[in-house]
Amino acid sequence: MTAQGLLDELVDVGRDRGRGGYSRHVFTPVERELRTWFTEQATRRGLDVETDRNGNLWAWWGRPGPNALVTGSHLDSVPGGGAFDGPLGVVSALAAVDTLKARGSTPARPFAVVVFAEEEGGRFGVPCLGSRLLTGSIDPDTARRLADPDGVTLAEAAASAGLDPAWLGADRRRLAMLGTFLELHVEQGRGLVLVDRPVAVGSEVIAHGRWRFTFTGEGNHAGATPLRDRRDPMLPAAEVVAAARRAARAVPDGRATVGRLVPTPGGTNVIASTVDVWLDARAGDEAATRAMVAEVTAAAEAAAAAEGCAVTVREESYSDTVGFDPGLRERLGRLLGRGSDDAPELPTGAGHDAAILAPHVPSAMLYVRNPTGVSHAPEEHAEPADVERGAAALADVLDHLGASRAGTVDDE
Amino acid sequence: MTAQGLLDELVDVGRDRGRGGYSRHVFTPVERELRTWFTEQATRRGLDVETDRNGNLWAWWGRPGPNALVTGSHLDSVPGGGAFDGPLGVVSALAAVDTLKARGSTPARPFAVVVFAEEEGGRFGVPCLGSRLLTGSIDPDTARRLADPDGVTLAEAAASAGLDPAWLGADRRRLAMLGTFLELHVEQGRGLVLVDRPVAVGSEVIAHGRWRFTFTGEGNHAGATPLRDRRDPMLPAAEVVAAARRAARAVPDGRATVGRLVPTPGGTNVIASTVDVWLDARAGDEAATRAMVAEVTAAAEAAAAAEGCAVTVREESYSDTVGFDPGLRERLGRLLGRGSDDAPELPTGAGHDAAILAPHVPSAMLYVRNPTGVSHAPEEHAEPADVERGAAALADVLDHLGASRAGTVDDE
Repeated sequence: MTAQGLLDELVDVGRDRGRGGYSRHVFTPVERELRTWFTEQATRRGLDVETDRNGNLWAWWGRPGPNALVTGSHLDSVPGGGAFDGPLGVVSALAAVDTLKARGSTPARPFAVVVFAEEEGGRFGVPCLGSRLLTGSIDPDTARRLADPDGVTLAEAAASAGLDPAWLGADRRRLAMLGTFLELHVEQGRGLVLVDRPVAVGSEVIAHGRWRFTFTGEGNHAGATPLRDRRDPMLPAAEVVAAARRAARAVPDGRATVGRLVPTPGGTNVIASTVDVWLDARAGDEAATRAMVAEVTAAAEAAAAAEGCAVTVREESYSDTVGFDPGLRERLGRLLGRGSDDAPELPTGAGHDAAILAPHVPSAMLYVRNPTGVSHAPEEHAEPADVERGAAALADVLDHLGASRAGTVDDE
Repeated sequence: MTAQGLLDELVDVGRDRGRGGYSRHVFTPVERELRTWFTEQATRRGLDVETDRNGNLWAWWGRPGPNALVTGSHLDSVPGGGAFDGPLGVVSALAAVDTLKARGSTPARPFAVVVFAEEEGGRFGVPCLGSRLLTGSIDPDTARRLADPDGVTLAEAAASAGLDPAWLGADRRRLAMLGTFLELHVEQGRGLVLVDRPVAVGSEVIAHGRWRFTFTGEGNHAGATPLRDRRDPMLPAAEVVAAARRAARAVPDGRATVGRLVPTPGGTNVIASTVDVWLDARAGDEAATRAMVAEVTAAAEAAAAAEGCAVTVREESYSDTVGFDPGLRERLGRLLGRGSDDAPELPTGAGHDAAILAPHVPSAMLYVRNPTGVSHAPEEHAEPADVERGAAALADVLDHLGASRAGTVDDE
């Protein structure tokens, strides 16, 4: 079955009629439907599917074992996201299995297709939560206490999905089995459009994190309360939006965004009592990223003080700049090039599970051309022909890496 | 039963555990529970309860008829509101009925206790919706199309509550029956605290309205989208918050507030595609109010243009300054004063059903002291002794107005 054909099967799952696009959040009925679909597709291909202690799905071709070659991505989405971010890597992996089988090619190494849980942090706020738990890069107690907007904790949601929340956390035996990880993903930008190519190799993921600002003032009546008596947390919250843009401008290639801002109680005729603002900040390295956050924090504190409000700032996640495995990148570039014309390399401001795994496992990424350059929105796109080119590239790479003991010292 | 005793019966109905306080929105199960409670209480007192074509409840003592003396308020709340805004006027009316009966005093005029629907506009955005529909001051087609945050229209919600949405709108026969309307309400400020008195007479409601700003940009990935490629509607939305404060400062006693701001899709790692911002603006007269809104609109348009975003501004409601009936005010002041020490008169920045009725029916308000001065928030309060003083004052006033043909030309 083609990758596009597999994608088409998901076209009605989790549509968000209010926001447009898709909302597919971890451990919701919609996301469980996606898990069931994946399990059926993998089983139909003769793969054995298991759910690990952190809710990630692993579909093994043959027996699990050391130096495993693993590919995959995620099926969850941001609120109102596009159809490709996540699913494209999963359907391309399944299509690649079909391609290898059609060629009569069976990997000589243990091989699995993986679906990571809560990559977007769309429900519990921490992106790449499944791979962070697997690698031990988030404390399991902290993770268990994460709550969704309705106050449901990760521990509760995991339990309702049949996991034992006591077992959430680092999965060292599983991690030690992984020999190579490859993630294919729709490009979140127009880098491939500019060079007119369908597929690129990822070079690095720039530093990124999320900070939550909570401003506390005094809830009151919007009509009956004179200005002099107000402590309105919306004013410093609005200043975070403006300060984020100023701070990002001051840093080369800095990106700072407020996409989520929640006043409580949120009534039209009510001065808010508290406002939560999430800052997403990214830059080339940790120093630049933290400098932006420090500038926004200083502006938030000054604006809060001017309005008689309190402010707390909490780092919800931070990931340093991660370069993908140089040897693997170089091999993929050559393999996907035509003659001397290697596939281009592109850095990204977007976080990925591959970047969480990279410090532990030789990892790499492939990007597929996105004509709009838009991502995390319904306009995100990949042409059907490019979807198949991406899946074919992934199959070629897996065939090559699976035939040898790629990623180990005796390789080549 | 005392007014406080009646209030205590509602203490667990509609608590909002997320926001604190109460969320009691029109035609929800919680609000239906309040309607049932009111109907039982009124029936227990021998009143006949009917629901009018717009969802307002009327409890008649004796037969409905012309020159009716009507008192009441509302039971709905803002999101996360206090326990008094609305219910205090309803329980005080029921307690006043008990007081009149204990005195053996039966009104010589038709008499009703009324509960108006959707006074706060907490679900469908237009405050005093029940009284606006009754008086014909909102077009019924416009009203039927109003939608709550989940997209449910007023027509749908009214139908689910057993109303015929085709009948929503001006109720001239009912309006013509009303001779006097009195609304008792918790004070939404500290005017009575400053003069150390428990009860005041309302003088006027200042001009007020709601304007909705919708900014449209381009949803995209918060990490992968360079600043130069962004059209982020959060930036002009934040400017509305700042401009509202500047504009209100420039007008004597101006009040401009953003308490509700909703980015769509609202993901942390997503540049919003649209942001809706509600501006609540109030000032001494229409010119001052519209000047504030014009200043905020100009700032919003400039900020939207600078970011490549579109903006639309829609007036959701506007009510001009309304003075309550001078003769009625004067009588209430004398009646509630002790000797030459009349009850104080206070204006308010808060809207009320009494101000919607005032152009049609001689209307007045009584305010009960609020030690915190806070309203539309859980801290809203009235001491039990003041609750009873308010209910006693209302009973005295109703006894006086009910005995004569108050509010008509042959009065006094």
